[in-house]
Amino acid sequence: MVAVDILKFPISSPADTSPLEKLRAAGYDASQILAVIGKTEGNGCVNDFSRTLAAVVWESKIPNDAVTIFSGGTEGVLCPHVTFIVRSHEATGLSATVGHTKALAPDQVGTVEHAGEVSQTVTSLVKELGVSQEQVQLVLIKCPLLTSEKLETIRGQGKHPITTDTYESMAKSRYASAVGIAAALDEIAEAQVEEALRTEHPWSAKASCSSGAELDDCHIFVLASDIKSAAQGQLGAISKPMKDAIDASVIIELLEQIKKEGGQVVQVFAKAEADPRGQIRGWRHTMNTDSDLHSTRHARAAVGGLIAGLVGDTQVYVSGGAEGQGPSGGGSLCIVYRVP
Amino acid sequence: MVAVDILKFPISSPADTSPLEKLRAAGYDASQILAVIGKTEGNGCVNDFSRTLAAVVWESKIPNDAVTIFSGGTEGVLCPHVTFIVRSHEATGLSATVGHTKALAPDQVGTVEHAGEVSQTVTSLVKELGVSQEQVQLVLIKCPLLTSEKLETIRGQGKHPITTDTYESMAKSRYASAVGIAAALDEIAEAQVEEALRTEHPWSAKASCSSGAELDDCHIFVLASDIKSAAQGQLGAISKPMKDAIDASVIIELLEQIKKEGGQVVQVFAKAEADPRGQIRGWRHTMNTDSDLHSTRHARAAVGGLIAGLVGDTQVYVSGGAEGQGPSGGGSLCIVYRVP
Amino acid sequence: MVAVDILKFPISSPADTSPLEKLRAAGYDASQILAVIGKTEGNGCVNDFSRTLAAVVWESKIPNDAVTIFSGGTEGVLCPHVTFIVRSHEATGLSATVGHTKALAPDQVGTVEHAGEVSQTVTSLVKELGVSQEQVQLVLIKCPLLTSEKLETIRGQGKHPITTDTYESMAKSRYASAVGIAAALDEIAEAQVEEALRTEHPWSAKASCSSGAELDDCHIFVLASDIKSAAQGQLGAISKPMKDAIDASVIIELLEQIKKEGGQVVQVFAKAEADPRGQIRGWRHTMNTDSDLHSTRHARAAVGGLIAGLVGDTQVYVSGGAEGQGPSGGGSLCIVYRVP
Amino acid sequence: MVAVDILKFPISSPADTSPLEKLRAAGYDASQILAVIGKTEGNGCVNDFSRTLAAVVWESKIPNDAVTIFSGGTEGVLCPHVTFIVRSHEATGLSATVGHTKALAPDQVGTVEHAGEVSQTVTSLVKELGVSQEQVQLVLIKCPLLTSEKLETIRGQGKHPITTDTYESMAKSRYASAVGIAAALDEIAEAQVEEALRTEHPWSAKASCSSGAELDDCHIFVLASDIKSAAQGQLGAISKPMKDAIDASVIIELLEQIKKEGGQVVQVFAKAEADPRGQIRGWRHTMNTDSDLHSTRHARAAVGGLIAGLVGDTQVYVSGGAEGQGPSGGGSLCIVYRVP
Repeated sequence: MVAVDILKFPISSPADTSPLEKLRAAGYDASQILAVIGKTEGNGCVNDFSRTLAAVVWESKIPNDAVTIFSGGTEGVLCPHVTFIVRSHEATGLSATVGHTKALAPDQVGTVEHAGEVSQTVTSLVKELGVSQEQVQLVLIKCPLLTSEKLETIRGQGKHPITTDTYESMAKSRYASAVGIAAALDEIAEAQVEEALRTEHPWSAKASCSSGAELDDCHIFVLASDIKSAAQGQLGAISKPMKDAIDASVIIELLEQIKKEGGQVVQVFAKAEADPRGQIRGWRHTMNTDSDLHSTRHARAAVGGLIAGLVGDTQVYVSGGAEGQGPSGGGSLCIVYRVP
Repeated sequence: MVAVDILKFPISSPADTSPLEKLRAAGYDASQILAVIGKTEGNGCVNDFSRTLAAVVWESKIPNDAVTIFSGGTEGVLCPHVTFIVRSHEATGLSATVGHTKALAPDQVGTVEHAGEVSQTVTSLVKELGVSQEQVQLVLIKCPLLTSEKLETIRGQGKHPITTDTYESMAKSRYASAVGIAAALDEIAEAQVEEALRTEHPWSAKASCSSGAELDDCHIFVLASDIKSAAQGQLGAISKPMKDAIDASVIIELLEQIKKEGGQVVQVFAKAEADPRGQIRGWRHTMNTDSDLHSTRHARAAVGGLIAGLVGDTQVYVSGGAEGQGPSGGGSLCIVYRVP
Repeated sequence: MVAVDILKFPISSPADTSPLEKLRAAGYDASQILAVIGKTEGNGCVNDFSRTLAAVVWESKIPNDAVTIFSGGTEGVLCPHVTFIVRSHEATGLSATVGHTKALAPDQVGTVEHAGEVSQTVTSLVKELGVSQEQVQLVLIKCPLLTSEKLETIRGQGKHPITTDTYESMAKSRYASAVGIAAALDEIAEAQVEEALRTEHPWSAKASCSSGAELDDCHIFVLASDIKSAAQGQLGAISKPMKDAIDASVIIELLEQIKKEGGQVVQVFAKAEADPRGQIRGWRHTMNTDSDLHSTRHARAAVGGLIAGLVGDTQVYVSGGAEGQGPSGGGSLCIVYRVP
Repeated sequence: MVAVDILKFPISSPADTSPLEKLRAAGYDASQILAVIGKTEGNGCVNDFSRTLAAVVWESKIPNDAVTIFSGGTEGVLCPHVTFIVRSHEATGLSATVGHTKALAPDQVGTVEHAGEVSQTVTSLVKELGVSQEQVQLVLIKCPLLTSEKLETIRGQGKHPITTDTYESMAKSRYASAVGIAAALDEIAEAQVEEALRTEHPWSAKASCSSGAELDDCHIFVLASDIKSAAQGQLGAISKPMKDAIDASVIIELLEQIKKEGGQVVQVFAKAEADPRGQIRGWRHTMNTDSDLHSTRHARAAVGGLIAGLVGDTQVYVSGGAEGQGPSGGGSLCIVYRVP
């Protein structure tokens, strides 16, 4: 059971580590950092070196057992920033922990082995936290993708990659991670994992997964709120997935609940995607036929615009590609708030 | 004084003219069309041939004195669609008219001559409508841009273009159109026009301008609501600019006024832009430093996501590049509604 | 046996049909047009409306039995242009014919049925031409792709699309077309077609296929040279595939052969692709990991630069995506020349 | 007079410093490095973090007085790689040196002060090398650009930036650097500098400049060949600008001269640009009207394809944006070779 505080700061570039000073000014030491979760300003796709740059400059500044999770893409109004999860000496209403899977072999990315590794690790982390599955509000994962080099490695071994399209490998990897989370949280049965990966239907309401070329294993962050509503001076976290990319009502619903408790939003963690059916509530969208701009970039911009507008804050964590992370076309949504 | 009705229909591609049949099914004939205003799925920038394609297929199907205004770019959740403005035999609460400026010479695009032509034409159209300037809720303009060919023409004449960057010429053209509207609506004095074009500060609250390579003159549409609030069975239009790209409050304010009148939203006309200061309410955005994706595409996606979420409709007209069309970083906003 | 002449002219936009006047000035009538083959300036991918625009404006101006084949993408130095294939009253050294397959159902695109239709039609066309398979120098095909709408149609029928990625469907469609050509020209046995589509190994040295959203059937153009070397005042065509994207030597070889015959290049038809192995002669390339720019755009720009430099002409037909059209990583190459 | 050797190695990502081991295997120590010149796989534009990532990982591994020059963009066939310039204990036929200007204030970028700083520093470096201006074959510069933040700084100081468009600031910065080189090499008179910056006509045949957000000063590398033709076992460098983007003849001319001396190409340094007139030898190109893809990316891909094809090597340094670096529409070209 690790009590955690959460703070966020803007960054002037992916290489900007000045938030460390602000963290110190807020009374925390770098040694207390459990996770650095960031939005950097790359394309969020295969060749997003803003993520790698951020990982390189941060990893030397945080404890060995801390994790970095950088999600690329601040399309539209989104502001590049980092969110610190720091160990607190006192109870805060929130608890969290982090871990890694083992490194995945290139041919395991996006497969049932990948999902299994995630499921095992998340199960251990939840147990370690000592919380119930219902208390888990968010499982954030950074997972690998397939580069041209990894594809050649697989071919050289006479094996078959899950896909030969590097951008599509990001989606496959996210989905395997999401299915692993769903299994660990009993949202699906362990026995369903294999079928899930084939049918791409089941989903987790708490999963938020993003892929990157900057790592070979999965970085995992689990966040739980230990009470139903946050006490004075405490933090709370609530989550409920968006049904589609224009589902303002669920955002408003959560914001009203927070308001009722007298709380103030600290951070929003949302997933966004282009509905794979090519439609939203029956209206055609063009995110899946735009060959100039990948659909994850479209989705982040649109859902980011909606959330930023409703919350009145552009430093929100909106990540693109919500396969298995909320209902198809929608995405998981978790809001962390503080009751002053 | 021309009473108009307004109807909108989705399109399956920029070449789709099947909405004509739906218009007939709704009791209107093509001969009644005053304007076809559409959102097509191109990049909304210089080489957006979805606009040209739509203009080509529609111009042979509408009356000679009708205008087409196609705005490219349905980033994010936006649905490609056309909005018909049709002459009504009875009063509807709305009146509208359309016109053209003369063709602008390449070296006039974006200049004081451009603004002057627009100002004159809008002034005539408002007079023709017989409405007060306050009753005007929206002036929509499609204006030309500078292609490589037009730039060469200018150079060949020993003249100087307003800019040698084709994408930037879109912004210059929009701004000149907006200043012309502002002058026609007395939002700025005629004497200020020249200075306005130099300083890029003054703006119109009613202007919505977009540029395209598909025309040499300006297509102009003026919409007025003849009463303060819409009567039963009538249409109304209200407008108030967004202060910035996340200004949900003004959208909510207009929606609540419409709700109070028992109205239902028919169409939203909004302009969006990346704040030129590189910040929104003090938070950095990255729309102006993203060399993979022009800022107008970012802005449409984000503001489109916000409006579609709040209105619950993705068939909204959100156009990028709001120079002089609402306050800097914000954009003009007009909502047309019907009281059943 | 249809003797043909070949002429090419630049276009100022995809909607520019002024080359018709130049054709007339050259002594040909629109009624003699067999094919209009063009390079337009879109992205050459799924949402390339420059192709549709060109098809719309040209199809009303050419004979009913003529075909249009527009390939999008003039990246780098390439000049947008159209190439006319016109029926000649006298022998020219070249013969050509055109045809269509039946419309392909969405679920047939990229499948063995698609390849079969192409194979049958090409076989008939070659027979109709009365030439040997060796005399065929080029089979140019425009074939359909899968849009979001077609994907939904397939799903609605409880069937499975060849892929759910619209951009990838272009590659699948090109490959099926190429395999059909290879079968028709006996480059592979008819019995190999099904396996070919699974393994993606066999290729045709004469195939040049491109996909588009603007059609449902395949437009096919077959070009044959009826003699080994061109006689004075006659046209010739020679072809030999590029082994990789930097294979200058084969281009130089063909150009030298033409020079030896005293010929002048009239047009080059080349296919280009990013080597799927992520390497060219052992050196890494980044075309398959660039999520901002599809690999077909990269490949057209690079190979277009090489060919234009060697030929000294930027009005060349270079098309991206060479699956089965030449060896993996290379592409088919055909040069048409005139001996004055 | 510093004798230098030159070696190049591929990199597997912008963060790959494994070429250091290969350098050691070749008998050189990191302490001998004078410059690391690299091509990384970003977009080569404003938000290219591959350059920053490479600079971050390399700067801790090279001597304090060494410089890094990373040029983003390996479009088309180009292979990401680094070129080492190392101090040699013996004469090699080549001499080189490196230096920095002072940091440029944001409002100085692209101005006469910028050009002046470059001119002074290059003049000192050439003097330090003890070579004649004719012996200088290449002056490579990495110079700053304007980000949104720098633009705000300028505005906050009540000053005016050279442009408010961040992408265009790259061109302005390159041009000021090129004019500085031209003045230092007496290609233009010092008195012409101010006019040059206004008219954008004069150019240097030896300049190769690229801009980046990763630095505030200019990194400068000067390369000279001390003899007319290279002796056995020695290196040589020859340069002559390309007249346009398809100028294969000048590349072939230099390659033949090298062949005549029995030499083998070690590295090619070329600049490429989209002809600002929108035409190449009278044929329209579309690089300046493609709003999806900046013209520098187009130009690198096309010219990179031509050079790689002719040289038979994709590890060549082709940089985009040749303002003042060779004739308009062309670019400087320098080939380094070794006579075994």
